Amino acid sequence: TRSIDLAVVAGDGIGTEVVEQGLAVLEAAVAGSDVKVSTTEFDLGARRWHATGETLTDTDLEAIKGHDAILLGAIGDPSVPSGVLERGLLLKLRFALDHYVNLRPGKLYPGVTSPLADPGEIDFVVVREGTEGPYVGNGGALRTGTPHEIATEVSVNTAFGVERVVRDAFARAQERPRKHLTLVHKHNVLVHAGHLWRRTVEAVNADFPDVTTDYLHVDAATIFLTTNPSRFDVIVTDNLFGDILTDQAAAITGGIGLAASANINPDRTAPSMFEPVHGSAPDIAGQGKADPTATVLSVSLLLDHLGLSDAAQRVEAAVAADLVERSAGHGRVRTTAEVGRELAARVAG
Amino acid sequence: TRSIDLAVVAGDGIGTEVVEQGLAVLEAAVAGSDVKVSTTEFDLGARRWHATGETLTDTDLEAIKGHDAILLGAIGDPSVPSGVLERGLLLKLRFALDHYVNLRPGKLYPGVTSPLADPGEIDFVVVREGTEGPYVGNGGALRTGTPHEIATEVSVNTAFGVERVVRDAFARAQERPRKHLTLVHKHNVLVHAGHLWRRTVEAVNADFPDVTTDYLHVDAATIFLTTNPSRFDVIVTDNLFGDILTDQAAAITGGIGLAASANINPDRTAPSMFEPVHGSAPDIAGQGKADPTATVLSVSLLLDHLGLSDAAQRVEAAVAADLVERSAGHGRVRTTAEVGRELAARVAG
Ligand SMILES: CC(C)[C@H](C(=O)O)[C@@H](O)C(=O)O
Ligand SMILES: CC(C)[C@H](C(=O)O)[C@@H](O)C(=O)O
Repeated sequence: TRSIDLAVVAGDGIGTEVVEQGLAVLEAAVAGSDVKVSTTEFDLGARRWHATGETLTDTDLEAIKGHDAILLGAIGDPSVPSGVLERGLLLKLRFALDHYVNLRPGKLYPGVTSPLADPGEIDFVVVREGTEGPYVGNGGALRTGTPHEIATEVSVNTAFGVERVVRDAFARAQERPRKHLTLVHKHNVLVHAGHLWRRTVEAVNADFPDVTTDYLHVDAATIFLTTNPSRFDVIVTDNLFGDILTDQAAAITGGIGLAASANINPDRTAPSMFEPVHGSAPDIAGQGKADPTATVLSVSLLLDHLGLSDAAQRVEAAVAADLVERSAGHGRVRTTAEVGRELAARVAG
Repeated sequence: TRSIDLAVVAGDGIGTEVVEQGLAVLEAAVAGSDVKVSTTEFDLGARRWHATGETLTDTDLEAIKGHDAILLGAIGDPSVPSGVLERGLLLKLRFALDHYVNLRPGKLYPGVTSPLADPGEIDFVVVREGTEGPYVGNGGALRTGTPHEIATEVSVNTAFGVERVVRDAFARAQERPRKHLTLVHKHNVLVHAGHLWRRTVEAVNADFPDVTTDYLHVDAATIFLTTNPSRFDVIVTDNLFGDILTDQAAAITGGIGLAASANINPDRTAPSMFEPVHGSAPDIAGQGKADPTATVLSVSLLLDHLGLSDAAQRVEAAVAADLVERSAGHGRVRTTAEVGRELAARVAG
């Protein structure tokens, strides 16, 4: 038997509800195999912060590091000042565990209605850099609250950091039928960072000669995501542009209720983390209204990362089948638990 | 008679073609009135750079400053290294002339097909900050071209710079029926800049008590621009987020062939500049294929800025009528000059 030790950070709002279903589907996916899943829950997020003032202690971090992977629900609550949990918990995990590949598929499943009139086939993946860019927290403020305030945010980009994520993106492109990589940046304005990204893509291309590449400014990329999303295969981009483009990608493929993500440490020096793209949605929390599909698809990415690609594919297939059935449309709105139960049943087969 | 001295920077690619039509419509709009338009052409852009190595000299800049407004076509060519003309000419104009309000309407005209299945009524305006943020050029690179390269980009935000553009956005919101202002930023990650923006909106709101406000992270804003663009009235945001959102706004309202913009110096210490959002489109340059509508709508913004609001409205009405007739669709594709001629005829009345 192989045992998988999972760190579970359900977090805030709908996080708890969707993670419960994600775990149920995970159990179903490994049932009858020699894989055993054990989970450790970590009490992190708004409640813990209110109770103790802590976001993520060194002890938490060390304990999490001992696991094979992390399943995360959602972090954040309006009662906590903006930035406290994002910087102190979510981004701290991504940075401390060196999740330099933030992988976000943009896929329009059959049966799912896109808000685009003529979406065509949408099946791309965004490789968003996860440990650099404007997300590093290297900003500051002077004379705060006065008419002379100045606030800065520094985007940091290193050859080391850019090359490793670009290499990962090329490797993914090479595995896909179209073998195409699009770099998205804004090198006509952000000339220093942009030119580093551009030179890196050109250089790494030499090691992946069968991958074709092109380049789009981030503003133009939002246009093509609206008018011709089929053109994209693999997109590689920085942390902030990736944040923006992947929400837009979620919007055109049926919404953030379906958008999965993986924060991957490809060197496996620390556990990778799997989470839906959506937030904690406090307005609908506790009502059984949240769609657990994004979390279930994140579980599929988790299984794939752990080398259980059969199980991963069965989970994705279950979601795909469920989405087709939804569109056939008995019209009944299911609860979070019902969707989870039906997906688990499909996976169990 | 009132004379308007216009600096004309046709620029590169389709710039020349669309500006010619923009000027023809401008002439038609003031014909028969006591307004006389005189133009001075400035040879700026790729050709000048290739010939002389100059982008924008102090002499050019001083000469331009002596005019009442600037009409700009498009800047940029693949033969010029990325960033040279953008930073050395276009952004230099915006910064040197203190164009701190970059105004970009997002309007779906009747008859125009949106790529969104159910666009609803789209009629908002983006007030994009034009002189700060990640556009300031305060970045740098170390050990360029080595494995130890580090490239930074610094976003600079000042209370002075943020307050003046936020105040302008509130004033615009107050003039509109819905009186609603949405701040777009990413204050949960870019905490220093983001909190300055947020505090400023809260503070300035006191002077515009009848304007309602809300806030969206930039990633969420791209979702709403896809699923519910009708929710927007006035958006205020920083230079980079504004760049991204206004291209997406153009995409959902019929494309960059229709998207106008105004780089405004509200204090009138220097001429404001009016330009289509699109670029120089070298692939179709010189073929009479470019749609001059975005430039013509920019001329409408120019007239409005100069206090000629009647003429401005007649130009916009001509475009609106032309767009309806297009959709009625004889199907014939008109040349740049034909569209310009027909618009001028409509304006002349
Ligand atoms: C919550 C926030 C810090 C986060 C991000 O910006 O990365 C979220 O938007 C995401 O995309 O996972
Ligand atoms: C050409 C480029 C520098 C410019 C910008 O980023 O502002 C353009 O994209 C625009 O939106 O006017």
